[in-house]
Amino acid sequence: MSYERSSGRAANALRPVRITRGFTCHAEGSVLIEFGRTQVLCTASVEERVPPHKRGSGEGWVTAEYGMLPRATHTRSDREAARGKQSGRTQEIQRLIGRSLRCVFDLKALGERTITLDCDVLQADGGTRTAAITGAFVAAQDAVNLLLAQGKLTTSPIRTAVAAISVGIVEGTPLLDLEYIEDSACDTDMNVVMTGVGGFVEIQGTAEGAAFSRAEMDQLMQLAGDGIAELVRLQQVALAAPLVKR
Amino acid sequence: MSYERSSGRAANALRPVRITRGFTCHAEGSVLIEFGRTQVLCTASVEERVPPHKRGSGEGWVTAEYGMLPRATHTRSDREAARGKQSGRTQEIQRLIGRSLRCVFDLKALGERTITLDCDVLQADGGTRTAAITGAFVAAQDAVNLLLAQGKLTTSPIRTAVAAISVGIVEGTPLLDLEYIEDSACDTDMNVVMTGVGGFVEIQGTAEGAAFSRAEMDQLMQLAGDGIAELVRLQQVALAAPLVKR
Amino acid sequence: MSYERSSGRAANALRPVRITRGFTCHAEGSVLIEFGRTQVLCTASVEERVPPHKRGSGEGWVTAEYGMLPRATHTRSDREAARGKQSGRTQEIQRLIGRSLRCVFDLKALGERTITLDCDVLQADGGTRTAAITGAFVAAQDAVNLLLAQGKLTTSPIRTAVAAISVGIVEGTPLLDLEYIEDSACDTDMNVVMTGVGGFVEIQGTAEGAAFSRAEMDQLMQLAGDGIAELVRLQQVALAAPLVKR
Amino acid sequence: MSYERSSGRAANALRPVRITRGFTCHAEGSVLIEFGRTQVLCTASVEERVPPHKRGSGEGWVTAEYGMLPRATHTRSDREAARGKQSGRTQEIQRLIGRSLRCVFDLKALGERTITLDCDVLQADGGTRTAAITGAFVAAQDAVNLLLAQGKLTTSPIRTAVAAISVGIVEGTPLLDLEYIEDSACDTDMNVVMTGVGGFVEIQGTAEGAAFSRAEMDQLMQLAGDGIAELVRLQQVALAAPLVKR
Amino acid sequence: MSYERSSGRAANALRPVRITRGFTCHAEGSVLIEFGRTQVLCTASVEERVPPHKRGSGEGWVTAEYGMLPRATHTRSDREAARGKQSGRTQEIQRLIGRSLRCVFDLKALGERTITLDCDVLQADGGTRTAAITGAFVAAQDAVNLLLAQGKLTTSPIRTAVAAISVGIVEGTPLLDLEYIEDSACDTDMNVVMTGVGGFVEIQGTAEGAAFSRAEMDQLMQLAGDGIAELVRLQQVALAAPLVKR
Amino acid sequence: MSYERSSGRAANALRPVRITRGFTCHAEGSVLIEFGRTQVLCTASVEERVPPHKRGSGEGWVTAEYGMLPRATHTRSDREAARGKQSGRTQEIQRLIGRSLRCVFDLKALGERTITLDCDVLQADGGTRTAAITGAFVAAQDAVNLLLAQGKLTTSPIRTAVAAISVGIVEGTPLLDLEYIEDSACDTDMNVVMTGVGGFVEIQGTAEGAAFSRAEMDQLMQLAGDGIAELVRLQQVALAAPLVKR
Repeated sequence: MSYERSSGRAANALRPVRITRGFTCHAEGSVLIEFGRTQVLCTASVEERVPPHKRGSGEGWVTAEYGMLPRATHTRSDREAARGKQSGRTQEIQRLIGRSLRCVFDLKALGERTITLDCDVLQADGGTRTAAITGAFVAAQDAVNLLLAQGKLTTSPIRTAVAAISVGIVEGTPLLDLEYIEDSACDTDMNVVMTGVGGFVEIQGTAEGAAFSRAEMDQLMQLAGDGIAELVRLQQVALAAPLVKR
Repeated sequence: MSYERSSGRAANALRPVRITRGFTCHAEGSVLIEFGRTQVLCTASVEERVPPHKRGSGEGWVTAEYGMLPRATHTRSDREAARGKQSGRTQEIQRLIGRSLRCVFDLKALGERTITLDCDVLQADGGTRTAAITGAFVAAQDAVNLLLAQGKLTTSPIRTAVAAISVGIVEGTPLLDLEYIEDSACDTDMNVVMTGVGGFVEIQGTAEGAAFSRAEMDQLMQLAGDGIAELVRLQQVALAAPLVKR
Repeated sequence: MSYERSSGRAANALRPVRITRGFTCHAEGSVLIEFGRTQVLCTASVEERVPPHKRGSGEGWVTAEYGMLPRATHTRSDREAARGKQSGRTQEIQRLIGRSLRCVFDLKALGERTITLDCDVLQADGGTRTAAITGAFVAAQDAVNLLLAQGKLTTSPIRTAVAAISVGIVEGTPLLDLEYIEDSACDTDMNVVMTGVGGFVEIQGTAEGAAFSRAEMDQLMQLAGDGIAELVRLQQVALAAPLVKR
Repeated sequence: MSYERSSGRAANALRPVRITRGFTCHAEGSVLIEFGRTQVLCTASVEERVPPHKRGSGEGWVTAEYGMLPRATHTRSDREAARGKQSGRTQEIQRLIGRSLRCVFDLKALGERTITLDCDVLQADGGTRTAAITGAFVAAQDAVNLLLAQGKLTTSPIRTAVAAISVGIVEGTPLLDLEYIEDSACDTDMNVVMTGVGGFVEIQGTAEGAAFSRAEMDQLMQLAGDGIAELVRLQQVALAAPLVKR
Repeated sequence: MSYERSSGRAANALRPVRITRGFTCHAEGSVLIEFGRTQVLCTASVEERVPPHKRGSGEGWVTAEYGMLPRATHTRSDREAARGKQSGRTQEIQRLIGRSLRCVFDLKALGERTITLDCDVLQADGGTRTAAITGAFVAAQDAVNLLLAQGKLTTSPIRTAVAAISVGIVEGTPLLDLEYIEDSACDTDMNVVMTGVGGFVEIQGTAEGAAFSRAEMDQLMQLAGDGIAELVRLQQVALAAPLVKR
Repeated sequence: MSYERSSGRAANALRPVRITRGFTCHAEGSVLIEFGRTQVLCTASVEERVPPHKRGSGEGWVTAEYGMLPRATHTRSDREAARGKQSGRTQEIQRLIGRSLRCVFDLKALGERTITLDCDVLQADGGTRTAAITGAFVAAQDAVNLLLAQGKLTTSPIRTAVAAISVGIVEGTPLLDLEYIEDSACDTDMNVVMTGVGGFVEIQGTAEGAAFSRAEMDQLMQLAGDGIAELVRLQQVALAAPLVKR
């Protein structure tokens, strides 16, 4: 007999996903993405310069920063700006988001400009990094669309979509898209990032308690693949709608 | 002839104010406050402990932290957590918010617990610190209401409301509630914090260009007093509605 | 019946003010200013370069830094250099000093050079920031006089003097130039910065306990105006004497 | 036709592995591990206290820190102690080592003490994190053996071995144990951590250029599994020899 | 023919030394010491607690901190508090001052209290560290005298005086008490710390250009010994006068 | 009767010295130096650029950094990179190493390039700074030899050798080359740096307990001089052997 999820969600079901484009007004792309109660504001900022290691290369750069509001969580956590440094977890996550987005960009086609994806968690209930990647892609697409509309780009540097989901095994049951309570209880936790055409970009699996087997891993990969395909479809639906600036 | 404001706003008019309670789900109080396009998320977190200087005093503590998302502004600003320190401006603002809220709290009546007000700017268009104070009060009131409902407090430690507004002189015209473009152009800029019964809590006036006269100051104080009275009324309206948790 | 001040000082009296020019030998301007037992060493340093935001603008820059020796106070406080950061209070004060001085400077007339005002408190007994502003002006004037004497400037970029004083209400009595014991006990505390011709540069009023009324504020502004007029006269007297380098 | 490795190494071959126990004299466990030219000094330090989150829990803690000597690499990199912070990469790696080791420890059986694994790279040629995990396990085993010999533990808290290896695809060829030149050129890079009984502890796969397919992933997992089985055997051989303190 | 010093000073002569006790009012000991144009404010602060490594030991602690006002020097140097860290030079000097003072203290006789010596350079012209040590001793003696007068100590924990001087070789001439211009030009620079009874506490000699010989070293030691004997006499003279609090 | 050293070592005897060149493969010079159980890895890195203060001067720069692995010592010490700053002791030592090496270099003859000497202590048993200087010289010589072999230099910028040793007085006996247990017990501790032709580069003597006399100092200088002569001979022997890259 398997693990019972909250609200009767099926083991292979995503939480309700909501993608709100144009959430704030200044950024070239601005998306509020919600995976259930997890809410992440993803903005894409375009700057007409590149970091030192890309100067004069003719290539652009795509990078990400991640943050969590102090009271995005059940109990208040310290503000990283006040503590004076970003935690190892924060750095790990923002490096993951950056790599994931760069993987679907043709940096040559982007030209010598930088797109910075700021992913700030307003409310956390598990899966903030996967929501961030999925939302950041939509924000990046909006920023690229703007560059195309402005004539700064003539062809899109985006090769395909990218999205991410978490999977895990809780009390023996493989589950898609863990919420916080499941994440805390799981034996194995895996974050999977895939492209719009089903290629793997990142796999990060961690045994929290006991090690996991090859068979379990295969189950999780299957779940993740199906979930990401659905997320990519939802990104397309969101992007097909006209962008209404607030 | 006087300065023409955007959208035909009168010199003594506030921008549209929107106060959304229960904006996020974990905090004891969570308010999104909007002054026109300025949006600040104010959360009130209750912790059953006090900082060292209050331990054993029988008194509580009320404090504030302030932040701005990197792309809350027209051009992206550095993330303070990544830079490794809060700017002087950030510290100045969060100290102001903290003092303003403490002024209407009876710390003895609060008991040995801390209320931390996190004010995070999602979108900036001038007046972020005044919106933060005005919204933080509503969040603090919701947190106190919860403590009363839980029986942790029997009488409210809040003595009166507190709200804040900016005023300034632009091209010779005294204006209420400056938006960013006005703030950049103004000769004199003043932030005023007042209680629900019309007492002054803080006045911070700065001559940006030429010094200002006593007569100008009196005009600004009048404008601010009327504006804050209206804000206090809007706080009451917002608090009178039932709190719907999202 | 009103509050009795130490040494029988009148409510509207300044403490003895002493301005010693040429206190140290290397700086272009070097002033020890004393408001009673408060002693602040203010040096003006001229550098023939400007910060990035002014480069190529044809304008100069005036800025300030503030510090307190660890044992300037009753009990030793941590050395900020050892702690590795300046407190919010320090940053707030040095920003105030910088704005106040810039307000009386014509940055165009200064040319692309920087004047840095270092205000270091040797001994503290209340009013360190107002003494710092008042003394920094004298140091800045000495530095400008040197630039004129050296032919680096032909007309003075200083438009008028600037000075500052604190006022406050202690046990119902409005007082001028609070010393530490009064500052700790006051209900309302206000720092006022004015030019040599009576214009307001900065007003920062804070209710420490109860909020203050408009009538109280008017009384404090009056006291401050008179006190600053006297300080400006004392600055002129000090500057009229020949500068004796030690 | 497949990628030609240096020294004619087979695609599925490890580099020569050397494990020197007792490399330094003070630590409870001290191992120099070499994967070809990659050399990592792994020390295990036992302290009879635990971090705050474990105090009073009856459980111990196992953690890791990672560093690289400035000239471990082809060109000198900045010393992290001089720069004043650890890079995101360093933090990511030391968190990985810590999780990997904890996964094979019964923290209850360890008792309230901490084992810290310091992994310092003396010479780098790819695979430093996998060498670190593999060597840290041997150092940890030596430290546990010492605790058993001293009677501080009566049964070993180590449940099984843990070891790690990198795999990747270079020019279409799946390779085991990448050296630096291969790592720089690879399309997909995966670090795999497994227990002595073949369970997965961590999988971190990253597409450097193009995304990778499920079939590629399966090949890499196979390679890694075989490689780790060999590493576990080498750990056993090393641990079977008497420990000679230098 | 030998090096000609400014103001016709003899090679073996100190600059004029001035020791002003009670320079500031709050500290338990407060001394302004001047070696020619070098001015250092040395305060001794007594706190009735000790750092962790001395808690419960029955012994006290004596420590020092050193700083330089930004414009103590010819050209303005960065404020260490603003830069966020103390330079290596600052740390080296404050460690030297601390060790030198501890060497003449019986920490057992001091009891579990700390004396912190803050040495802040108001004006620099070479020899700031030696002036700091010489002045800090006088401040420490005043603090101890106060503890004796208050009955907190019954016998003095100070075993003997301590003083310091610099010596060096400039253009082949051994000189006592180098001023800045001599210090910049010297081949060999030595700081010597000795007790009131002629024992060596610290010797720090550095060849700036060419290495120095044993014979040169002997000459410098002789010069230093004579100079310190004179400084110890001047300390005694200063301490023999009644302390007038300002 | 005199102090008995471990292993029956004579008071004027060095511990066994071992100098292994080519210890790691990437650096231009790489030396493991051992003074008994003290082991320091010294690498010399050549970079074709100089720090700002040397740019355009036609001169090169020689500098040093020092570190200690956390478990180089009896009990684990904090990792400086994790703490976020280098200790005062670390900075003092690396400044000493840098000055000592620069003293034997003709920076003009080096040309506008930098040699950085990284001295990392793998195992500590007293004398790490003196071993570091002695080993760093050998690494620097190897780097210079490489520059000569590559034709980047035509004449050596090294004027003479440099080496260092500690001396001290333990229970009244003057000893050469203190190991940790002796260092902890000594009354006087002196580090001496000398050139290959017997000139003094640095002398740093510290009285740990009682002050020391001139006679004691003379004894220590004699011991040190003889010890350094022997170290210089050992450097020559090591450098005379062919360099075998590992």
